[in-house]
Amino acid sequence: MLSGTFISFEGPDGAGKTSALQAITAEIAPALGDRLTITREPGGNPISESIRSIILDRANTAMDYRTEALLYAAARRQHLAQTILPALAADKLVLCDRYVDSSVAYQGAGREIGEAAVAKMNEFATDGLLPELTIYFDVPAVVGLRRIQAHRDPTKVDRLDVEQTAFHDRVRAAYLKLQAAHPDRIKLIDATQDPATVVAQSLALIKQTAPAYF
Amino acid sequence: MLSGTFISFEGPDGAGKTSALQAITAEIAPALGDRLTITREPGGNPISESIRSIILDRANTAMDYRTEALLYAAARRQHLAQTILPALAADKLVLCDRYVDSSVAYQGAGREIGEAAVAKMNEFATDGLLPELTIYFDVPAVVGLRRIQAHRDPTKVDRLDVEQTAFHDRVRAAYLKLQAAHPDRIKLIDATQDPATVVAQSLALIKQTAPAYF
Ligand SMILES: Nc1ncnc2c1ncn2[C@@H]1O[C@H](COP(=O)(O)OP(=O)(O)OP(=O)(O)O)[C@@H](O)[C@H]1O
Ligand SMILES: Nc1ncnc2c1ncn2[C@@H]1O[C@H](COP(=O)(O)OP(=O)(O)OP(=O)(O)O)[C@@H](O)[C@H]1O
Ligand SMILES: [Mg+2]
Ligand SMILES: [Mg+2]
Repeated sequence: MLSGTFISFEGPDGAGKTSALQAITAEIAPALGDRLTITREPGGNPISESIRSIILDRANTAMDYRTEALLYAAARRQHLAQTILPALAADKLVLCDRYVDSSVAYQGAGREIGEAAVAKMNEFATDGLLPELTIYFDVPAVVGLRRIQAHRDPTKVDRLDVEQTAFHDRVRAAYLKLQAAHPDRIKLIDATQDPATVVAQSLALIKQTAPAYF
Repeated sequence: MLSGTFISFEGPDGAGKTSALQAITAEIAPALGDRLTITREPGGNPISESIRSIILDRANTAMDYRTEALLYAAARRQHLAQTILPALAADKLVLCDRYVDSSVAYQGAGREIGEAAVAKMNEFATDGLLPELTIYFDVPAVVGLRRIQAHRDPTKVDRLDVEQTAFHDRVRAAYLKLQAAHPDRIKLIDATQDPATVVAQSLALIKQTAPAYF
């Protein structure tokens, strides 16, 4: 029986998921101790790490987008089997930086495989296990990209940036569609707000979903 | 447009698929020349080979069965994208040693993930592309296993053999179910017959499905 609580953080590149998770951890870890599990794919297990290294190997330029999506799903499955499911079985609060919605948004919409096809395939990987709560960090694609590329001269925009922006626009649109389709599970936070506000709103959602831990 | 013809060979371990394919190739390759493509997963491309090596790595004892099934599907997708689809686009007759039915039988039934779930997930990998003809080499599980383990003393049966036989019985039962469900695509050959008869019957099916090549 899975008695823990599973919460995922989602959103475009540079939305602030990882920073917020760090701030939240700093705030709640002292009281929660080992009842808190903070994780992200591939999650440190050797199998998922090997899979991820195939995806990221720059020599693999011939990789088909569906192959890529299947590899992400395989790494996800293994992380679920080795990290998330045992933590939930041990009654932990699991906060996970990205999960299945990332594949729907990035592979389904970004890579244009199709959101429904990627979602269905990932049901095999998750065996239907979804988070009780997904906090979606909403930012316009350009805002996230600019945060990440803060070191770059913002007046210089090349062809790759334009393509990148179109890709990330599709990703954000897919997230918004997912949120609209699953309003009970996926809660939107305006991630253009200042970090302290984003963290406070995230924490409120977490406490509401998992009151037993607080 | 895919103008070639795609034919797969299926059946339990030791049914005789690879030997028959070799004999068939010897017979038809001289006339067909480069209009014939003989292949098998992972198919020699670096991405599928890397994926396969993760599956087969004996250090990966913690591999979840669904992870394994997703990795097989990923390797299949890449082989399809890099070998089968280009060959079909170039009007070739493609004979492939194992394809998607193997996953349904081995991962779905053998590993007991469920045949329907594995079939559905593989539809993502194949984007629905099925062979025009699948030649199913039918043998009782023990016959195939005995052929492979011909060097072993047949009077010695240990616990692993018993487990192995149960696994392979499930695999064969799944193949028979697939054949019954897709009688137009999947044709059964009694692979307990002598090799020459099996080859002659396979060749007759191939010529019937792809007369333009002969
Ligand atoms: N609310 C915010 N306002 C302004 N800047 C922010 C905010 N949140 C995070 N940042 C900054 O944006 C950058 C990206 O943040 P972070 O790495 O947390 O994003 P992310 O969502 O985890 O991105 P990725 O998906 O690429 O991992 C960092 O430099 C971070 O300090
Ligand atoms: N019709 C037959 N009768 C008897 N033995 C056979 C027959 N066909 C093949 N064999 C022998 O059975 C063994 C297994 O054959 P083969 O490797 O072709 O099977 P396979 O179906 O490709 O198995 P695998 O699924 O393990 O690759 C070989 O030693 C082969 O010579
Ligand atoms: Mg991050
Ligand atoms: Mg073989």
